Amino acid sequence: MDDDRLQQLQHLLDAEPVPTRRPTVATLEDKLFHIVPVLDHGFVRVVDYMGDDAAIVQAARVSYGRGTKSMRNDRGLIRYLMRHRHTTPFEMCELKLHVKLPIFVARQWIRHRTANVNEYSARYSILDREFYVPEPEHVAVQSESNRQGRGEVLDAAQAQAVRDLLRRDALTTYESYEHLLNDAGDGVPLREGEPQVARELARVNLTLAYYTQWYWKVDLHNLLHFLSLRMDAHAQYEIRVYAEAIGALVAAWVPQAWEAFADYRLGGAFFSKQELDVVRGLVAGGDLDTLLGGSDLSGREKTELRHKLGAD
Amino acid sequence: MDDDRLQQLQHLLDAEPVPTRRPTVATLEDKLFHIVPVLDHGFVRVVDYMGDDAAIVQAARVSYGRGTKSMRNDRGLIRYLMRHRHTTPFEMCELKLHVKLPIFVARQWIRHRTANVNEYSARYSILDREFYVPEPEHVAVQSESNRQGRGEVLDAAQAQAVRDLLRRDALTTYESYEHLLNDAGDGVPLREGEPQVARELARVNLTLAYYTQWYWKVDLHNLLHFLSLRMDAHAQYEIRVYAEAIGALVAAWVPQAWEAFADYRLGGAFFSKQELDVVRGLVAGGDLDTLLGGSDLSGREKTELRHKLGAD
Amino acid sequence: MDDDRLQQLQHLLDAEPVPTRRPTVATLEDKLFHIVPVLDHGFVRVVDYMGDDAAIVQAARVSYGRGTKSMRNDRGLIRYLMRHRHTTPFEMCELKLHVKLPIFVARQWIRHRTANVNEYSARYSILDREFYVPEPEHVAVQSESNRQGRGEVLDAAQAQAVRDLLRRDALTTYESYEHLLNDAGDGVPLREGEPQVARELARVNLTLAYYTQWYWKVDLHNLLHFLSLRMDAHAQYEIRVYAEAIGALVAAWVPQAWEAFADYRLGGAFFSKQELDVVRGLVAGGDLDTLLGGSDLSGREKTELRHKLGAD
Amino acid sequence: MDDDRLQQLQHLLDAEPVPTRRPTVATLEDKLFHIVPVLDHGFVRVVDYMGDDAAIVQAARVSYGRGTKSMRNDRGLIRYLMRHRHTTPFEMCELKLHVKLPIFVARQWIRHRTANVNEYSARYSILDREFYVPEPEHVAVQSESNRQGRGEVLDAAQAQAVRDLLRRDALTTYESYEHLLNDAGDGVPLREGEPQVARELARVNLTLAYYTQWYWKVDLHNLLHFLSLRMDAHAQYEIRVYAEAIGALVAAWVPQAWEAFADYRLGGAFFSKQELDVVRGLVAGGDLDTLLGGSDLSGREKTELRHKLGAD
Repeated sequence: MDDDRLQQLQHLLDAEPVPTRRPTVATLEDKLFHIVPVLDHGFVRVVDYMGDDAAIVQAARVSYGRGTKSMRNDRGLIRYLMRHRHTTPFEMCELKLHVKLPIFVARQWIRHRTANVNEYSARYSILDREFYVPEPEHVAVQSESNRQGRGEVLDAAQAQAVRDLLRRDALTTYESYEHLLNDAGDGVPLREGEPQVARELARVNLTLAYYTQWYWKVDLHNLLHFLSLRMDAHAQYEIRVYAEAIGALVAAWVPQAWEAFADYRLGGAFFSKQELDVVRGLVAGGDLDTLLGGSDLSGREKTELRHKLGAD
Repeated sequence: MDDDRLQQLQHLLDAEPVPTRRPTVATLEDKLFHIVPVLDHGFVRVVDYMGDDAAIVQAARVSYGRGTKSMRNDRGLIRYLMRHRHTTPFEMCELKLHVKLPIFVARQWIRHRTANVNEYSARYSILDREFYVPEPEHVAVQSESNRQGRGEVLDAAQAQAVRDLLRRDALTTYESYEHLLNDAGDGVPLREGEPQVARELARVNLTLAYYTQWYWKVDLHNLLHFLSLRMDAHAQYEIRVYAEAIGALVAAWVPQAWEAFADYRLGGAFFSKQELDVVRGLVAGGDLDTLLGGSDLSGREKTELRHKLGAD
Repeated sequence: MDDDRLQQLQHLLDAEPVPTRRPTVATLEDKLFHIVPVLDHGFVRVVDYMGDDAAIVQAARVSYGRGTKSMRNDRGLIRYLMRHRHTTPFEMCELKLHVKLPIFVARQWIRHRTANVNEYSARYSILDREFYVPEPEHVAVQSESNRQGRGEVLDAAQAQAVRDLLRRDALTTYESYEHLLNDAGDGVPLREGEPQVARELARVNLTLAYYTQWYWKVDLHNLLHFLSLRMDAHAQYEIRVYAEAIGALVAAWVPQAWEAFADYRLGGAFFSKQELDVVRGLVAGGDLDTLLGGSDLSGREKTELRHKLGAD
Repeated sequence: MDDDRLQQLQHLLDAEPVPTRRPTVATLEDKLFHIVPVLDHGFVRVVDYMGDDAAIVQAARVSYGRGTKSMRNDRGLIRYLMRHRHTTPFEMCELKLHVKLPIFVARQWIRHRTANVNEYSARYSILDREFYVPEPEHVAVQSESNRQGRGEVLDAAQAQAVRDLLRRDALTTYESYEHLLNDAGDGVPLREGEPQVARELARVNLTLAYYTQWYWKVDLHNLLHFLSLRMDAHAQYEIRVYAEAIGALVAAWVPQAWEAFADYRLGGAFFSKQELDVVRGLVAGGDLDTLLGGSDLSGREKTELRHKLGAD
C-alpha cells in the first residue's frame, strides 16, 4: 500500500544473505519476499520460516526415542507421523506470510484461530482504491446441489454485466470514502473548512471486495489443517486460490511433509462405520450396487460414497 | 433475520422453566433470551450460561486447598484471585451470547481468539437490508492526538450529510446485491430467464456497515479480558457499546467477580518501573512536577502519568 | 480429599432442584455430582454442563440458515455436521468434570490444550496416601509390535510381585513425604523442634502413581477429539478407562451427537490416496491380495489396510 | 539422554553456517545449540528462532501504518507497543528451546497452553537415572506468610538429611524401575525367563524429581507472559531458574523488546482503583499513613501497597 512499505520490502530483497546455523531451506530462500500474485490485486509471500523436514524428525525422535529407530529414514518417519496423526512434531515448523486479500476472504481465513495475525488497520490508515472483481470465468450462478457454492458460469455478456455492477458500486463507495476522509492525496485536493471524518467511521462505507493485508504466522500442523479445508472443492474459489498458492510454497519448504500430506490427507478420504461395512462387503466379493441397496446409508450418503469410490 | 429464527426464540421465552441441580442465577434467568438493543439494529442476548460466583470459589478451593482457608468468605477469595491474577478459576464459568452486529465490529471482535463462534453465513443465506448509520452525535472528525480515534463531533448539518451519504451507498449496494441474487422475496419479483448469481459472490458487494449475527461462547476470564480492552476509552465507540451491554449482563450473572473486576482491572492502572520511581518519590514527600522533571520518562509518558494520577 | 471438600459435594447432591429456562437434559441431571469410579481410587463426575443436542442444531441453523432447511430433522442435521466435519456447532456445548486421576495419567491428559483446568496444588495442600496399583490382569510385558504399548499379561505370581513392588515404593516415598512435611495429622504426631519442609519441595518425592484431582471444562468438539484419541486401542489402558467413562456420560448428555460420533468417527477409518486406489480396485472387481501386491504400500501399511478392511 | 541424540546435537554445533536472507541475530547465533545448565542436571538451549526486534516493528507498521510514523525509531515504537499492551506484533517472533527439567517443573510449565511441545515419552523410551536434589541452600521450611512458598532455609545438618532422604527414595524407585523393565543396559544384565514389564507401566514408579526433556516452541508475546509469571518472586525456585535462564537468552535475541519488558512489566506494578485513590492522595500532598488509614483497603492490601511503594 504505502510506498514506504513496498520500499522496505525491496530492501529485504536487495540485502546480502548472512550466515546462520539454523535449519535453512535453499529452495525456499529463493522464494523469500517474492510476491506470488493471487486474484486481481492480491498476493502471498513468505516473510520468514522456522524449521524444515529434518526439524519434524528431530522433534519426533525426542518424543518417541527408541520407538523411532525402526524407521530407517526421515521420509518414512514423516509418513508414519502423518498417517497416524502424530501431529505435534509438525508444530515444530513455523511459517510467516505477508498476504494481501479481499476483506470477504479475510473474514473466512480469520476463523482459523491458531495463528498469529497483524492486520492493516483502517482505523489508523487509509485503504487503497483496490477491490476484487472476479474474472468472467468465475462469475457463476448459485449451485442447486451445494447450498454454499456456485453452479454454472454465466455467459459472457451476463458475466460482464455482473462485473460492471460490482466495479461501479466499489468505485462509488470509494468516492464517498475519500470524500468523507477529505484527506488530500493521489490528486484529491483538501476541501478547506470541511470536516475530515474519522477513518474508523469512513471505512464502514467500503464493500467487502476491498483489499486488506496482514502478516499471518502459523505452525505447519495448523497450516496443513487450514490447507486441507481451504484447498477442498467446497471452499470458496477466492480463498482456494490462496490455499493453493501457499501449498506450492509449503511444497518447496518441507517437501517430505508435503508429499505425506498429499498422500495421507488431500488424496485420502474418511469412511464411516456404515461405509466401512460396504467396503468390507466388497472385499468379500460383493457388488457395490447390491451392497449399497442393503445398507442403511441415506440417499445423500450413497451418492457421496460412490463419489469417494470413483463409481459415480 | 428469517422469521422462523425469531419464532424459535420466542419459543424459548415462552417455555416453562424446568428443574435443574446446576448452579443457577435467578437475576440472569430473568434476562435470558431477552434482547438488549445496541446501536441502530444490533443486540446482545444471553442464550445460556454455566456457573456463578460460587463456581469460581469452588474451583479455587480445589486448586489452592488449605491455602484458601484463611479467606473467610467467597467475596474475599474472589477479590484475592482477581488481584493476584489467578485467572484459571474464572475460566470455570462460561457465557453464550447471541449477538447482532455490523460487519466492521465483527471484524474487530473476532480477533479475540479464545472463544467459540457460529456466524451467519452469507454463502448459505441472504443478508437482510439492515446496515449501521451512526447517530449524529457520533459522527466525528479524525482525532489529532489519537491516531486511531475520533475528535470533535460534526455540526448538525455536516453530520446529516455524512449520514445521508452512508445511507445512500448502503442502499445502492444492497439494490445491486438483490439484483445479482435475483431471488424473489420481500416484494422483489424474480427476473425470469436471468441468472441467480451465487450468494457467496453477490455478498462481496455489501459494505462493512451491514449487520451480521453470531453465537459467541466464551469463558469468564477471557470475557473479562475482552471487556477490559473493549470498554476502554481507546476502543471504537461502536464496539464499546457492545462491551458495555455485555458488562451489565456479567454484573447480573457474577456480581462478586464483576465488583472485583471493576476495582482491580477497570478502575486500576499499571505503572512502569520509571513511573513507580516517580510515585515512590511522592511517598518520600516529593513534588510531582519536580519528580517528573527529574525522570527519564518521555513527554508522552509524562502526559499519560499525569492522567493516571488525576493531575492533568 | 479434604473432608470439607467432600462435604461440599454432598451439599450439592442434597440440594433441591431450582427452575431454569436453560436447555436441560433430564438424563444427565440424574448423574450430576455422582461419582463414576475409575481405576482403584479415581473417578469422574459431571459438575456442570451447558447445552444439549438442540443447542448444536440451533447454532448450525444460525450459521447455515436456509442451507439447513433441507435437513428435515435434528438428528439428520447433526449427522450431516459430524460427517462433513462442521465442527463449530459442537463447540456450543460445554461440559465440566471433576476428575481424580493418577499423576502419570494427568500428564497425558493435560496435553490437550483446548480446555480449562484447575488442579489440586501440592504446593498449597498435602496429597493423600492414595496411589495407583494396576489390577493383576493389567500387568503386562512390553509389546514387541507396538513400541508404546503392552503385550501379554504376566502370570499371577509375577503380576503380584510387580504389584507388591509398586506398592512398597509408593508407601516408602509417602512415608518420607510425611516425614519431610512433619505436619501432624492422621495419627502422625508433630516432631517438635524439627523442620516442616516446604510442601512444594516435599512433594517431589512422590511417585507418578499418586492421585491428583482437577476440574476440567471443555467444549463438546474438543471433548470428542480427546475421546477419539484416548478411547483408541493405542491409548494407554489407564487413560482409556477415563475416556470410556466420560463417553458414557456424553452419551447420556447429547445422545444424537454421540450416535453420530460413534458412526462417523469411532467406527470409521481414514484411507490414504494409495489405500483408496486399492479400494477402488475392489469396486472394479479386483481381488484384495492382487491389488495389495500391485500397490506401492509399505508392508506395514498393507497390514494396517487389511486390518481396516477386516481381512486380517 | 541417549548418546545418539547428544551426538546429533554436536553435529549441529559443528556444522558450517549457511547463508540466509531471513532476519538473523548474531548474538543469538553464538548461543545456538549451546547448553545453559539449570539445576543439577537440567538445561535450556536455543534450537531455533524466528524474527528479531525489527520483525516486531515490521508487523506493527503494517498494523498501525501511518499511526506509527510519529514514532521516530524502532526502540521508541517497541516501548510504545509494550506500554500499551499492543501484543500482536510480539507474536511475530518465535523461539524454539530444548529443555531438560524435573517432572514436577514440567507439570507447572505445561500449564501455559499457548506453546508447541514435544516431550520425551517414557511409554516409548527409558528414562535415565537422573533426578533432582536441591542444593542445601534451597532446602527450606514451609512459609507461614505465603501459603505456597518457602520460608527459612534449614541448617546444614537438617538440609543434608533431607537431601539424603530424597536421594535414597529416588534411587530405590529407579532400582525397581530397572528391575521391572528387565532391559539389559548400563551394566544391568537381562534376567532370562523373567518378564520385561511394559515401559508405560514401569515408569509410574519413578518420583516427580526425575528429569524429562522436551522441545518447547512459543511466540515472544506468550513467552514474555510465561516469564513474567515464572520470574516472579512467588514462583517456585526450581522453575524460576529456568525462567531466568530463558530471560537471558531473550535479552540476547531481542534486546529492545527485553528492555521494554523489563521497564514496563517486570519492574512495574498494577494499582487497583482503591490503591490509585491513595496514590492520588499523595499527589495532593497527603501522607501515606493517613491515606492508608482512611482507605477501605484490607490489611493485606495495605501491606501489599506499602511493598509496591517501597515503604515497608
